[in-house]
Amino acid sequence: MADSKPLPALNGNPAAAEALLQEVFGIVVDEAIRKGTCASEKCHYSIKKGAAFLGLGTDSVRVVKADERGRMVPEDLEQHIIMAEAEGAVPFLVSATAGTTVLGAFDPLEAIADVCQRHGLWLHVDAAWGGSVLLSQTHRHLLDGIQRADSVAWNPHKLLAAGLQCSALLLRDTSNLLKRCHGAQASYLFQQDKFYDVALDTGDKVVQCGRRVDCLKLWLMWKAQGGQGLEQRVDRTFALARYLVEEMKKREGFELVMEPEFVNVCFWFVPPSLRGQRGCPDYEERLSKVAPVLKERMVKEGSMMIGYQPHGTQGNFFRMVVANPSLTLADMDFLLDELERLGQDL
Amino acid sequence: MADSKPLPALNGNPAAAEALLQEVFGIVVDEAIRKGTCASEKCHYSIKKGAAFLGLGTDSVRVVKADERGRMVPEDLEQHIIMAEAEGAVPFLVSATAGTTVLGAFDPLEAIADVCQRHGLWLHVDAAWGGSVLLSQTHRHLLDGIQRADSVAWNPHKLLAAGLQCSALLLRDTSNLLKRCHGAQASYLFQQDKFYDVALDTGDKVVQCGRRVDCLKLWLMWKAQGGQGLEQRVDRTFALARYLVEEMKKREGFELVMEPEFVNVCFWFVPPSLRGQRGCPDYEERLSKVAPVLKERMVKEGSMMIGYQPHGTQGNFFRMVVANPSLTLADMDFLLDELERLGQDL
Repeated sequence: MADSKPLPALNGNPAAAEALLQEVFGIVVDEAIRKGTCASEKCHYSIKKGAAFLGLGTDSVRVVKADERGRMVPEDLEQHIIMAEAEGAVPFLVSATAGTTVLGAFDPLEAIADVCQRHGLWLHVDAAWGGSVLLSQTHRHLLDGIQRADSVAWNPHKLLAAGLQCSALLLRDTSNLLKRCHGAQASYLFQQDKFYDVALDTGDKVVQCGRRVDCLKLWLMWKAQGGQGLEQRVDRTFALARYLVEEMKKREGFELVMEPEFVNVCFWFVPPSLRGQRGCPDYEERLSKVAPVLKERMVKEGSMMIGYQPHGTQGNFFRMVVANPSLTLADMDFLLDELERLGQDL
Repeated sequence: MADSKPLPALNGNPAAAEALLQEVFGIVVDEAIRKGTCASEKCHYSIKKGAAFLGLGTDSVRVVKADERGRMVPEDLEQHIIMAEAEGAVPFLVSATAGTTVLGAFDPLEAIADVCQRHGLWLHVDAAWGGSVLLSQTHRHLLDGIQRADSVAWNPHKLLAAGLQCSALLLRDTSNLLKRCHGAQASYLFQQDKFYDVALDTGDKVVQCGRRVDCLKLWLMWKAQGGQGLEQRVDRTFALARYLVEEMKKREGFELVMEPEFVNVCFWFVPPSLRGQRGCPDYEERLSKVAPVLKERMVKEGSMMIGYQPHGTQGNFFRMVVANPSLTLADMDFLLDELERLGQDL
């Protein structure tokens, strides 16, 4: 991706992409095929929310199975499409994810693109979290197949740490689709008799009216850091996450939820009173109460802020997301020491 | 309005209010009654855009007549409601405007509230631009009746000059409506087992997911300036607009579109070659070409930025909006002198 690659459009609202897609097909859609898993905890909630706001209804979203690492199962996707068509529904969109919120999973985009191609469906990739990995020569293979997408959402305010909010919607389309779908031709705001090319005005292509110029901070950052600087930023987060994982394996109080493939390090802190108790009847229940207590303690101490959540059938675990570019190995050590200190009496 | 008055909810997206209202009524709505005029140029375009995004369709928006000053005609509103009901439609919302974009008109809210009360309709007031006038004891009468609204949208980033974006949606409701309508209960993001009252979490009440804390800048500004400081800011913009209007009357090159009731000063600059030509066959056409030329010149000089637009049957005129709190009387004089200088050869 060259430094000067233009952003086709910026949009802070996930619903925008959906409205767009609905209009593209110009048909009454009554079903949408979406990525997800059988457990609603694993889908990004914005997908169903978007369907609700657009008047499609949450029932129009079909949830596809994910494997044990949270990746969409393409065979299940195809089954859903066939089932939907048999029911008389009109599938039109598949939303795959590159970098899920909790586990940091990357869907198999090549296989999903094959399914979309067979059935003539629009492929959207929600790369809000994982899209920045494309800047890394080492790790970009995680997104193999994204070049076949019809649309991609990407948040430079996440892994690249651009200031909130900075969201890009990238489209394969070259027919000025956003303008055709969203343009309201409000002549009192978007004058056509200007002395420069009014195609440069983005105001009439987006959902909002008055808004910040969110692309400027990305442009400035990219100019300041260069493609190489941003690549280093991405590679560094992977290295820090790897270091954290290896250090956890050396300490008895830490248990990984799974070996991460991205920078989401999901783990339980197992306090002294619970060590060696796995398999006991109330072990899971007691373990799930540890993270909220530790979170309260770290917030009140003011030392750290690490998110936690339940996930599917698994109780509360921490999700350390290594994204801040100023983090160091020493910070990783501090994190581990601090959790041990805060949880030593549990 | 006390300095510490809490904001029930903040939301940057006009569609949010609409979705909300749709859900409130729990019915399939096929018609919405909206403020506007017979000329689409006079309605704020976000209303129709919102209807499109929500799947209601732009045809569900009925456009009510405005008087010669751009204020909604309550009698025409009631006629539209009666007509819609006769056609089997289900009117559910009236959107009135306090401070229209171009003319700065304030709809007669008391009379509109009477109509809404008679027909059991939700009254929304789009006070994005004019809402800040409530802070002024002198001018708040412009919004008489707003206390009867079910919902009010207000943009402190406009007249109060808070940084973009800062938008408030104020609701009469006390039943946690936003949570009930928008809540997606994504347990992996909005944990319920926190050590503080999770009712304070606004994340699950709004359209967006990750977003800036837009209320903080308003809160800080309010604390720093106080209610009196903000009142002075509002009163000062009225005084500057009044000064500008009176000075325009003294110069032959300026023609007011109408006597303003707010801080939108709408005027034509009539260049030397057109003075005294009013009534000539091509006068309107030639006059409408003046503003784009002057705009180009001021932008290239870097001296000013004044918006212009056509409006209804009227050709391009300038709209000077006096909102920047650091503007002075000398700036108003500069504006007039600069327009005369830039347009002296036209």
